[in-house]
This record gives sequence, C-alpha cells and structure tokens, in this order.
Amino acid sequence: MAEASRISEARRDAVFARWVIFSPARSRRPTDLKSHGPANPSPGPDDGAPKPSCPFCLGRESECAPEIFRVPAPDESLPWRIRVIENLFPALRREAAPPAPEDEEPVGAGECAVRGFGFHDVVIETPHHEVRLWDLDAEGVRDVLLAYARRVQQLAEHPAVKYVQVFKNQGASAGASMAHSHSQMLGTPFVPPSVTSRLNCMKEVFERSGKCSLCAVVSKDILVSETHNFSAFVPFAASYPFEIWIVPRQHSSYFHETDQDKVLDLAGLLKSMLQKLLPQLSVIGGFEMGSGCHINPVFPEDAAKILREIDSS
Amino acid sequence: MAEASRISEARRDAVFARWVIFSPARSRRPTDLKSHGPANPSPGPDDGAPKPSCPFCLGRESECAPEIFRVPAPDESLPWRIRVIENLFPALRREAAPPAPEDEEPVGAGECAVRGFGFHDVVIETPHHEVRLWDLDAEGVRDVLLAYARRVQQLAEHPAVKYVQVFKNQGASAGASMAHSHSQMLGTPFVPPSVTSRLNCMKEVFERSGKCSLCAVVSKDILVSETHNFSAFVPFAASYPFEIWIVPRQHSSYFHETDQDKVLDLAGLLKSMLQKLLPQLSVIGGFEMGSGCHINPVFPEDAAKILREIDSS
Ligand SMILES: Nc1ncnc2c1ncn2[C@@H]1O[C@H](COP(=O)(O)OP(=O)(O)O[C@H]2O[C@H](CO)[C@@H](O)[C@H](O)[C@H]2O)[C@@H](O)[C@H]1O
Ligand SMILES: Nc1ncnc2c1ncn2[C@@H]1O[C@H](COP(=O)(O)OP(=O)(O)O[C@H]2O[C@H](CO)[C@@H](O)[C@H](O)[C@H]2O)[C@@H](O)[C@H]1O
Repeated sequence: MAEASRISEARRDAVFARWVIFSPARSRRPTDLKSHGPANPSPGPDDGAPKPSCPFCLGRESECAPEIFRVPAPDESLPWRIRVIENLFPALRREAAPPAPEDEEPVGAGECAVRGFGFHDVVIETPHHEVRLWDLDAEGVRDVLLAYARRVQQLAEHPAVKYVQVFKNQGASAGASMAHSHSQMLGTPFVPPSVTSRLNCMKEVFERSGKCSLCAVVSKDILVSETHNFSAFVPFAASYPFEIWIVPRQHSSYFHETDQDKVLDLAGLLKSMLQKLLPQLSVIGGFEMGSGCHINPVFPEDAAKILREIDSS
Repeated sequence: MAEASRISEARRDAVFARWVIFSPARSRRPTDLKSHGPANPSPGPDDGAPKPSCPFCLGRESECAPEIFRVPAPDESLPWRIRVIENLFPALRREAAPPAPEDEEPVGAGECAVRGFGFHDVVIETPHHEVRLWDLDAEGVRDVLLAYARRVQQLAEHPAVKYVQVFKNQGASAGASMAHSHSQMLGTPFVPPSVTSRLNCMKEVFERSGKCSLCAVVSKDILVSETHNFSAFVPFAASYPFEIWIVPRQHSSYFHETDQDKVLDLAGLLKSMLQKLLPQLSVIGGFEMGSGCHINPVFPEDAAKILREIDSS
C-alpha cells in the first residue's frame, strides 16, 4: 500500500518526544511463521536437513544479506556455528548519511526528522533449523552472547551510533517472522527516550542515596536463581506476569565489557531461565497504550515462587 | 496459580520510575471472546435478543456490578441507552484506603508501593449485544462521550484521584474479554510517567517557542478529516501504521470541559474515523519492548492518504 521504496526515516514528535522509526521496506520481508497462526510452532528434534525455504540454514548462506563475521564450530565439523549478518530488510540503513551534529536539536525544540541511518544485524544462533537457543549447551549459549558483545563493541566505536539494542523474538505471537533461531541488533543514531528516563531515574536514586538501583540486594521472595556472578529475579514492579531480569552481582556498566569467564556463568543462567519461561499470555490493552502504565495480574513474589519451582534441568 | 484474593497494589521501581498495577483478582474475570480466537468476531445485525451469557445486555442488569448512573433512551422505549457501572473485577478498588500525602515520595527516592486505591468503571455503550459504537448515530455517540465527560468530572473531584484514563478495547486481539460494546475508565492515585513526560515535552516546546504542540496547524498531507471544531490526522511520528489523533482546533485543556454542542461535532468525526479504521496488524516485538522506540512500516503521509480515500459514509 505505502511506497515501499521510500528511504526510512526516524522522527521525534513535539508531544511525547519519542523517536519512531519509519521503514516501508520492512513490510516486504518474508515470513515462514505467520501462516502457522498466532501460537508458536513446536519444532521437533533436529533432523539435520535444511528447511526448503529457510535462508538461515546451513548451506543457504548465499540467500542471506552479507555476513559481518562468523564463529567457527569448535570441532570444525561444520563451516560455522554462529553467523552475524546484515538484515536484508533493515529498519535503519548503514548506507544512509548519519545525522550531522547540527541536526541534533534539544528535545523541547519540537518535531524532528532524521534520515534512517543505523545498523540492523541478525545473529543466526545455530546452523540447524530446529534447534532453539536453550537447546544449545552452556558453551553454545556463551558463544552467542560473545557474538553479541563483539558486535556491540564494533557498533559502539562508530561515532554516529548512540545506542545498541539486542533483542530476540521467539515465535509468531512474539512478532517473529523467521522460525530459525536468531536474534537481532539495532544500532540507532539516538538514545530512545525510555532508555534516557531509565538512566535519569537511576541517576536520581544514586544522587539521593549513594546506591545503584540494580546493585541493591535482591530480596529472597523475588529471586528465581543465583550464580556466583549473576542474579535472576522477577523485578519488584514487573510489567509482565513472568518477566525476569538477569543482573550482575558486581556493579558493571556495560554488557559488552563482561569478562569472558563470567559470560559462561551468564550463559548457564540464561539457558535455565529460558527453559523456565512461561508463554506470555497478557495483552497490552487500551489502558496500557494510553497511559504507559501496565496492569499485571501476577505479583512478582508469586511469579518468582512458580518460576523457582519449575525444573529446568 | 497466584493468590487471587490478595488486594491489589501499585508499585513504582527505582530503575524505570514507572508505575505498574498488580491485580491478581483480574485473572478471574470472565470472557465471552477469547474462544473465538485472535481475530475479531464479525457480529451480524442486532436481533434484539440478549445473548444467553452477557451481563451487559438489556434485562441482565442484576448480573453486573453496581450502577453509577444511566442515560435514558430519548423516546423512553427502553429503560436505558447507556449505563456507567463499576467494574466487577477492578484493577484498582474504590474501597481501598487512598495513599496518604506522606506516602508520596519523589521519583528518585527508589522503590515505592501503594495500596491499590482507585476507580475502575465500565461504560456500556448500548443495551443491544450486536451494536457497535460506530453503528450508533452521531447523537448516540455524543451521549457516550458525554457519559465519559460526566464520569471524568466526578472522578476529578476526588482529592486522591490524580489521573483518569478512558479507553476502549475492540475485539479479542485488542485484549477485550467482553464482546458487548463497552469502554472503560480508570482513575489512578498517580500520574503515569508517560503522561508526565508528554506534559513536560509540551511544556518545554511552549517555553521555547510560545506554541502549543497540539494547536500547531496540521499539514494537509497528514490530515484525514476536519470539522468546524476538530481535526483528525495521522500524527507526524505515529507509533502504529494507522494511528489517528483527534484534536480540538481551538486550544482547550480538558476533554470533560468541552461544550455540549462541540461534543456532537466530535461524535460525528469519531464515528467516521472508527468506520475508517484498519485492523492493527503490527506486533510489538523485542526491539520496541526493550527500547520503547517503535518501528512503523507505514509513513504517516501514506497512511493519511489511504484513510482519506476510505469511504466512511
Ligand atoms: N535472507 C535474509 N537475510 C538477512 N536477513 C533476513 C533474510 N530474510 C529475512 N531477514 C530478516 O530476518 C529478520 C527476522 O526477524 P524476527 O523474526 O525476529 O522479526 P522481525 O524483525 O521480522 O519483526 C518483529 O520484530 C520487530 C522489531 O522488534 C517488530 O518491529 C515487528 O513488528 C516484529 O514482527 C527480519 O527482520 C528480516 O528482515
Ligand atoms: N458482570 C460484570 N459487571 C461489571 N463488570 C464486568 C462484568 N463482567 C466483566 N466485567 C468487566 O468488564 C471488563 C471488560 O473489559 P475489556 O473487554 O475491555 O477488557 P479487559 O478489561 O478484560 O482487559 C483488557 O484491557 C486491560 C486494560 O487495558 C488489559 O490490562 C488486559 O490485558 C486486556 O485484556 C473487564 O475489565 C471485566 O472485569
């Protein structure tokens, strides 16, 4: 319907001061999931064979957008274990001209639009179509996390990239268009306002109390699991019923600066949390859209108790 | 699973400074929609007969939570045309003790929890099960808007109510649990942070430019329709593909203070916008959840053009 060939653009309005990315080309991206309906398909065990139409499978590398780097398989039995590639239908484009410093207007200046510059990458987590992230062993999950960290580091070095969001959509009902296990990364030329307000809130708490809001000792009733270096818990004011945060126990500012050995610890914890996760059943209704305030039917203490009791071994 | 009899509570965390309402009792509310699957059911013409299990239908008033007020039918052929009632499964409770002024901590003070005080009402827009809001004539829609305004006015007079959100969920995929045409209203003991940041952004623009961000003349390319008193347009940085805002053309701060004759004008415009609305197809994925920044595949100018061309007569 819309002019899909138009170049993408990021706009900030004068009412919410929030950035929105406009990307008509995205509407042309393929999907091998939506036809399965809203429920997540339950893949069976990996039969090793690539799915007829999946460009993320082993042997179909030429159907993908260019590779940024690959992580080899430890035993060299396969040509790769993880691939970081460009997104073929990027929301932001690395070829666009980065916004010039003089384009940066203060928030209160009103509406603002910048060319859709940015980086949009895909991390293919496994060469096998039916393997999910939590099916990998802890070393396999660690290598995915290290691939994130390496790519975030590269993007952070670009002077026009102000923020990087790593994210993973699991299943059609979570918005995924591709079934093959993958995650994504977007490097944006602005800091999203909800990130700024999170930082401002933590700064205010620190100035008032001398404490970091995330280092605060996690109370036992919301704790799900703990390792030497990380805590997994349901946050005190969780927006979603079984929301889990994983936070380092020692103060640390950047994910991509985490020590290699700590990353293995994190990978084990992440794997077990993914195995415990319950499907997200609550819907964002009109109240949440209008006010930004969520209604959560499950208290964090109750959610944490249920999550602790689920066996993920 | 969770202790559904626990009293609800509102919490603000020390990271996002956002309020979340915890309401275990909500998980017990009935639904006559979810079994139809995610697509909205397409009701046929009204046959006048109440649906066997719908408490919002004419004649089933006793199955509802207490009535706050009713709007009579103009010709008195029916006992009522609109009913404003209490929500039987309220997210916030009018019986709870309102937070005391000393409970109000500055945002930077850290975590905060208040008893779940507030008002949660339902507006039954028609006595007939199959009639949708946009099936009413302009006078019928006006009366629904006047019922909102009257109830907002009542809630605004309560000293502990800081904000009122009116909202409507249409269809199961939008989160509605009841098919009978209705809307809801929540009066909260706090101003949601996204409302505060909207106000702050508009204040900054005003201080800088002397202009109200919403009074700014709407450019023709994003305009969908205009009446004497109101403009309907796709906002410059719309978060969703066919998002529409309706804004008064004369500066005005409060919906509930709109003149009665202007409300009829608004009702006609709202009815025609509802008739034009396209189903919401985009999903909030991991990027949007993580960053608060939306990716919209349709430019507002393109959306407005499509919406202008849809015949709503
Ligand atoms: N051959 C190929 N080579 C390289 N890349 C390829 C490719 N074929 C497809 N791709 C890309 O692979 C990605 C797969 O991503 P996901 O399945 O996680 O969700 P998607 O980004 O489609 O949208 C979801 O996530 C976004 C962001 O949260 C939401 O905006 C959206 O509504 C939701 O559906 C797509 O972005 C697609 O462009
Ligand atoms: N006999 C009766 N008398 C009085 N009231 C009755 C009643 N029977 C049912 N109700 C109430 O009627 C309301 C119907 O509301 P909707 O269908 O608009 O969505 P709901 O509030 O269920 O949740 C959607 O909207 C909320 C708020 O946006 C989201 O939190 C949620 O995820 C989403 O599904 C319910 O709140 C229910 O409690």
